[in-house]
Order: sequence, then structure tokens, then C-alpha cells
Amino acid sequence: MSGTLHGLGLGPGDPELITLRSWRIISLAPVIAYPEGPSGHSRARTIATPFMPDDVEELPLAIPFGANAQDVEMAYDRAAAIISAKLDEGKDVAFLCLGDPLTYGTFGKLATRLAQHYPVRVTPGVSAPQAAAARVGRVLAQGDTPLKFLPATMDEEMLTAECMNRHAALAIIKAGGRLSRVHAALLRAGRAENALVVEELGGADERVLPLKKALTESDDAARYFSLVLVWPQP
Amino acid sequence: MSGTLHGLGLGPGDPELITLRSWRIISLAPVIAYPEGPSGHSRARTIATPFMPDDVEELPLAIPFGANAQDVEMAYDRAAAIISAKLDEGKDVAFLCLGDPLTYGTFGKLATRLAQHYPVRVTPGVSAPQAAAARVGRVLAQGDTPLKFLPATMDEEMLTAECMNRHAALAIIKAGGRLSRVHAALLRAGRAENALVVEELGGADERVLPLKKALTESDDAARYFSLVLVWPQP
Repeated sequence: MSGTLHGLGLGPGDPELITLRSWRIISLAPVIAYPEGPSGHSRARTIATPFMPDDVEELPLAIPFGANAQDVEMAYDRAAAIISAKLDEGKDVAFLCLGDPLTYGTFGKLATRLAQHYPVRVTPGVSAPQAAAARVGRVLAQGDTPLKFLPATMDEEMLTAECMNRHAALAIIKAGGRLSRVHAALLRAGRAENALVVEELGGADERVLPLKKALTESDDAARYFSLVLVWPQP
Repeated sequence: MSGTLHGLGLGPGDPELITLRSWRIISLAPVIAYPEGPSGHSRARTIATPFMPDDVEELPLAIPFGANAQDVEMAYDRAAAIISAKLDEGKDVAFLCLGDPLTYGTFGKLATRLAQHYPVRVTPGVSAPQAAAARVGRVLAQGDTPLKFLPATMDEEMLTAECMNRHAALAIIKAGGRLSRVHAALLRAGRAENALVVEELGGADERVLPLKKALTESDDAARYFSLVLVWPQP
């Protein structure tokens, strides 16, 4: 009997935003895996730390960000091999995911590799755009309004096209280090005026400020966890 | 000193998908308010029931669905008045919201009426599209893929236009009783093939089936909590 791989959504940063189910699975997990940056820091582990059992076996997995595509795929191959060894021992493995596991998460590439061979269960989590709207205290979308999650990494022309519908609410994610690009797309779409940047949501450095101010003030490259909210026009 | 109004996201149905923060606030709340249908049923209350204190004061609020706009606005006026009376007594009021309070929730219209006069705090929740993807066990969006929440109530031409980008993942919400309309829009956009319907997510009647099958089989009008997921084409 092989173990089960759990993809656990933790929400975007505040440990109190994890769900009861993620908390339960973490607190009982024999093995907990998470992505770790080159400096040994793991934002996912930081969120889960208050709930992790003392005797848990930890699997920090080196997943490079911003590396070339081939290196990233190789890193996921290695991570999948490390996890499958534990599953083969019959141990359940809980993989920690920022936000929601299936919405722009690191979990997708692992699940693709492992779901054919092992049982996989996903626990959804609170996504950053919802938490950012709560932080700002303003309705994100209601009634007939579309709501779009747009990665700032998108093709610029397509990003601009997706911003054009003024009746849509926008959450432009992965905006850290890409605020100029986002601003240019919103300018072309005539929607740069009321854009807000939410930086390091739920962290000690959390900050909310107008996009225009963020462009002039902040260290764009250093703020990895940034997103831009744009409200629909009536 | 007036009380604080809390908008609490409960997630889409499974009580284990509420966050630790919503759980904490519910378990300490002196007053808990929630929308109630004409039959006296409240899906939000059902989710929160395991966590509610025995001696809590309950405020069921009559919020009509599908009524004319003026009746809905008047119902929210009445609900806001009932809540403000409790806040004026200095009691905190926890308002229970399905999914996330600021994403197509009932909370928006209350917050609009009360935020100028009372402190309001929002606790985000897991949204139905994320939980539906977890139920299906398939990545919703990754990499450069846009993800769109589209209300099935939208203008048909605009709904079709928003479905056109084949690289976007779609979550068409409020689809109960509107599956034919959604199917027509997806057909026009050339995207009806791989659409899945998720009905009554997290409830006892939960069901996942292809849109084509749902059109012929299910009692369209009765399935209020339905959404349609459409994955991006590579």
C-alpha cells in the first residue's frame, strides 16, 4: 500500500487563513514537503510551522524560480522522485502550497508527475486576490461583473487585450518586479488610474499603495509577492 | 463603543474548508447573522453550525434571490438596520458568507450600507472555483494562463466574448438554471467540448459531469449551486 500525496492550500500568508482541513492534515502528517528557495527560505513552511508535529519528517525541495524552463522541469523531476520514495514506503506526504494548490501553484507540476502512480488529494486554499481584497476592504466583484486573474508574465498584447473590458475586475498576479509592464498594459487599456498594489500580503512587510506611487517608490525587483487590483468601472 | 461587523468567508460547502480565523470568530461571536431563503433554509448557517456557540444570538436575514432589484435593495436595507441595532448595543456581529465575502457574496451590499458608520473586518474564504478544481483533481490555471470567473447572468454577447480566448481557464459561476445559456455561449466560442459541471459542491448531492450530459439529464432549474469549468487549450 503506497501513501497518499496531499496538496494543501495554505492561503497567501497569514497562518490563520489556512483551512481546518489543511490544519488537520498537517497536524497528523508523517512527512511534510515544501518548495525551498536557494537561500533555504520557504514561505510555505513559515505559514505551516505553528501546526507541524514535532517529530515530522521534513522534505525541503529545491525548486528554482526564474530559472530556464529545462532546469525547472529537472528540479520537479527530482522533487517528484524524492516524494515518490516516501509514498512507496507507505507514508502519506503533505505538500505545502501557498494560496490554492491548483491556481498558479507549484503543486500542478508535481501532481502531473505523480497522479498516475499514487492517490492524490487536493485541499483548496484562499487565493491571494481574495485575501488582498479583504485587506483593502473593498468588494472585488459582484453581480454580473467578470473577475480575471491575469499573470503579469503574459504576452503583453494579450495582457492589454484582457484588461480592455472596463466592466471586469482584474487581479494581476506575479506582479513583483513587473510593475512597469503591468502599468504599461493598464495605460494602453485606459485603466491605470485606480489600480492598487498589494505587496507581501499577510507578511510583516505588507503594504497597500496606488500603482503610480509603487512605480516611483518601491524596490520593484525585491517585492516578489505583489499583485495589482483594478476595480470595474460602473 | 459600537461593535465590529465581521464578514466571514466559509468556503463553498464543506465545513472543514472554513479558515481558522473564521472558525475563531464564529466560536466567540455574541451575534451571528446569515441570509435565509423563504423556506427558512440557510446554506451558510448549515456550514457554520458545528462551530457556533450554544448561547449565540442568531439573526436570520430574509434576502430574496431572483426577486426584482428594488425588492432586493429594500431587503438589504432592512437587514442592515437589524445588524446596526446590534452593533449600536456594542455587540460584534459575524455575518456568514458562502465562499469568499467579497467575491460575488451577499456581504458586499451590507458592507456598502454599514462601513461608513461601523468598523468592518473581512475574513476571506475559499472560492467555489478553487474547491471545484480540487474536487475534479485537475490544475485550474498555471504559468501564463489567465483565469476568469464569469457570472452566467452576464450579457450573452459579453459572456461569449470573454470565452473566446482559448488560452484562458474559465469558471462560469451562478450556472444553476442557466446551463443552456452557458452552453450556447461556449458553443459560439468553440469551447463547449471539454466543459464540466460541478453541482452542489461539498453538499450531499455533489456531482461532477460533462456539460453535455448535464443539459440532457439534470433538473436544470433545481440545481442552484452549479458552476461550469472549462480548461485552457494548449
